[in-house]
Amino acid sequence: MKATVCRRGEFEVVDLPMPEPGRRQVLLKVLRAGICGSDLHARIHCDEVAALTGEVGYDHFMRSDERVVMGHEFVGEVVSYGPGCRRRWKAGTRVVSLPIRRDGDEVQMTGLSARAAGAFAEYVLVEEDVTMPVPDRLDTDLAALTEPLSVGRHAVARSGIGRGDVAVVVGCGPIGLAVILMLKAQGVKTVVASDLSPARRALAGSCGADVVVDPARSELADRIPERAMHFRRGPELLDFALDAMHKLRTVPGLPWWRLMGLGERLGQVPKGPVVFECVGLPGMLDRLGAEMPYRSRIVVVGVCMEPDTVRPALLSNKEIDLRFVFAYDPDEFRDTLHLMADGRIDARPLLTGTVGLDGVDAAFAALGDPETHAKILIDPASEAVTP
Amino acid sequence: MKATVCRRGEFEVVDLPMPEPGRRQVLLKVLRAGICGSDLHARIHCDEVAALTGEVGYDHFMRSDERVVMGHEFVGEVVSYGPGCRRRWKAGTRVVSLPIRRDGDEVQMTGLSARAAGAFAEYVLVEEDVTMPVPDRLDTDLAALTEPLSVGRHAVARSGIGRGDVAVVVGCGPIGLAVILMLKAQGVKTVVASDLSPARRALAGSCGADVVVDPARSELADRIPERAMHFRRGPELLDFALDAMHKLRTVPGLPWWRLMGLGERLGQVPKGPVVFECVGLPGMLDRLGAEMPYRSRIVVVGVCMEPDTVRPALLSNKEIDLRFVFAYDPDEFRDTLHLMADGRIDARPLLTGTVGLDGVDAAFAALGDPETHAKILIDPASEAVTP
Repeated sequence: MKATVCRRGEFEVVDLPMPEPGRRQVLLKVLRAGICGSDLHARIHCDEVAALTGEVGYDHFMRSDERVVMGHEFVGEVVSYGPGCRRRWKAGTRVVSLPIRRDGDEVQMTGLSARAAGAFAEYVLVEEDVTMPVPDRLDTDLAALTEPLSVGRHAVARSGIGRGDVAVVVGCGPIGLAVILMLKAQGVKTVVASDLSPARRALAGSCGADVVVDPARSELADRIPERAMHFRRGPELLDFALDAMHKLRTVPGLPWWRLMGLGERLGQVPKGPVVFECVGLPGMLDRLGAEMPYRSRIVVVGVCMEPDTVRPALLSNKEIDLRFVFAYDPDEFRDTLHLMADGRIDARPLLTGTVGLDGVDAAFAALGDPETHAKILIDPASEAVTP
Repeated sequence: MKATVCRRGEFEVVDLPMPEPGRRQVLLKVLRAGICGSDLHARIHCDEVAALTGEVGYDHFMRSDERVVMGHEFVGEVVSYGPGCRRRWKAGTRVVSLPIRRDGDEVQMTGLSARAAGAFAEYVLVEEDVTMPVPDRLDTDLAALTEPLSVGRHAVARSGIGRGDVAVVVGCGPIGLAVILMLKAQGVKTVVASDLSPARRALAGSCGADVVVDPARSELADRIPERAMHFRRGPELLDFALDAMHKLRTVPGLPWWRLMGLGERLGQVPKGPVVFECVGLPGMLDRLGAEMPYRSRIVVVGVCMEPDTVRPALLSNKEIDLRFVFAYDPDEFRDTLHLMADGRIDARPLLTGTVGLDGVDAAFAALGDPETHAKILIDPASEAVTP
């Protein structure tokens, strides 16, 4: 089969043997595969990432001297089954799958390991257990977005945000846009989005952001609704506490000690915003710690691959919560697929181009410029070499 | 009145004018004042701290060239009232108070600002609004611990820990010990405590820790009960997901998509431990991120005053939550006072020495050695110069 392999950061289209489905595995014909921000990073910095994943116990992340077929966001057609399968779908059925695969006693990350070739190829292997059919009414291009949109779904679920809370999305690449789509699908009333790129800000608006901010022109905190910004500085809180306690204690007929309960229990202290960090570059956490108000919950969705410096005393003073999130649970993957199929989210604005296997290199280059592209799909049946 | 002032890190006992209670303020005769870890740090590094608090809007933190009466943990007797007070307690009543004070339109931190002299003195001013009487049955020495123990109460409240969760307390200085006391008062069944110092480990046991670990002799993670450690490494989780999904999908009679819900919703994925970081030194967050398992919630109680480096990708991979907490709400302060008065926590193990105002310098020096002291109280009526 035809496949695009990456080695030392260079792409090459080669002929590879047809993959054989192992026990409980399914062979798919790839219809579309998306390029992820992690792919852009892994292409250049995979050795650093491999060292880091090694530290958490995954020793098979791709390395620069290996030949790797990347591609972990994909939709394909069922071709054939390996032994032990339940053969749930007939040949030709469109399916999506979690990008994890059994490999002896281990589990590999499909498309990010030399041990589990991904979907920048004509065919790809998946586990039947973590594969699900694409509803007929869902467009194939959109089905390919199930994986990245699931990341947004998971981030919103783990954030614990309520509909009345203020959401702030920092960085409007595909993951930031996925977060915006999922926040609006969940009924969050106020979503503030920020990105340096005009094109990305336009996409944020298309995805449903209520307030779109150019951080080069106005301070993000100035554009957050007041109800989430009452205590931008520590002394304001102390002042509030002192005055509120005086007022409370002068209410007749209530024992004073019943009135000591300030804080969230009495609903006196407004909650801070729920901030989604979707940039993933060093310095973002410290910057948000400095800019965001008291009791902000910063959901860290962007994965910063380098060491980063924060000022803990500043985060302490504001009682900030840094909630790191990663990937998704299988049910979130399924829910995402069906949210799209049911028309509850429209991810079409994210799709900005399609190329064939010979266009992978040009597509990676094009994604370096946020003004022209958000998500580029690979269609192995296409001849296009530029997105 | 006699007071111990700090300037350029040096202590000196001097005669100061008797403080005059302002509007809504009360003059107290100091009975006991505790020395806080923040005091030890502020004595030497107050200029750095002042720069940091300036950034969050508090411009009056003590500076090295100012003469400051420190002391923000204290119990005193009511002497007299300023104008506008409700005069709730008769003279001689023992009271404790939040260490915040009005100063024109601003609020000052008592004992940490040249604008609000603290309790290393014969007398101190407090706001009537944030002052509460000490129950007769509570010992004066213990009442002086209300403030530091409130920090532990707040940390436990903000942690959201349940009785069945595993708590891990890293660092058993006064704040770590306060956290242990509060965890046990709240009925948390398993508290693992870790400290390099044998004396501090003994105190942790006296305060109710169930497992006490010497981190120099065994890896902390090895001493955490298995129920909170199932996924120490990322691939274990993937493996679990894949196998669990296969098992779930072979249960007859349930639609497959109802079985996709893994994760916490099905109670399949054990929760990680709730870790209380009570050391406050650079490097602790990164170390805990590396050592602690998947979905650990790290409650950052120790305030690290220097910039610190973390590896965000590692925290992301494990979906770790860094929850920074600070100080306490007024109702937590009151609850702490009454938990002690009702005998629900016994903080007596923390008390290791008492000195008079002339012994402040020796007490600060003695607190540098964790083997001999935990909490030293200042009793202005005492002549003792060594703790």
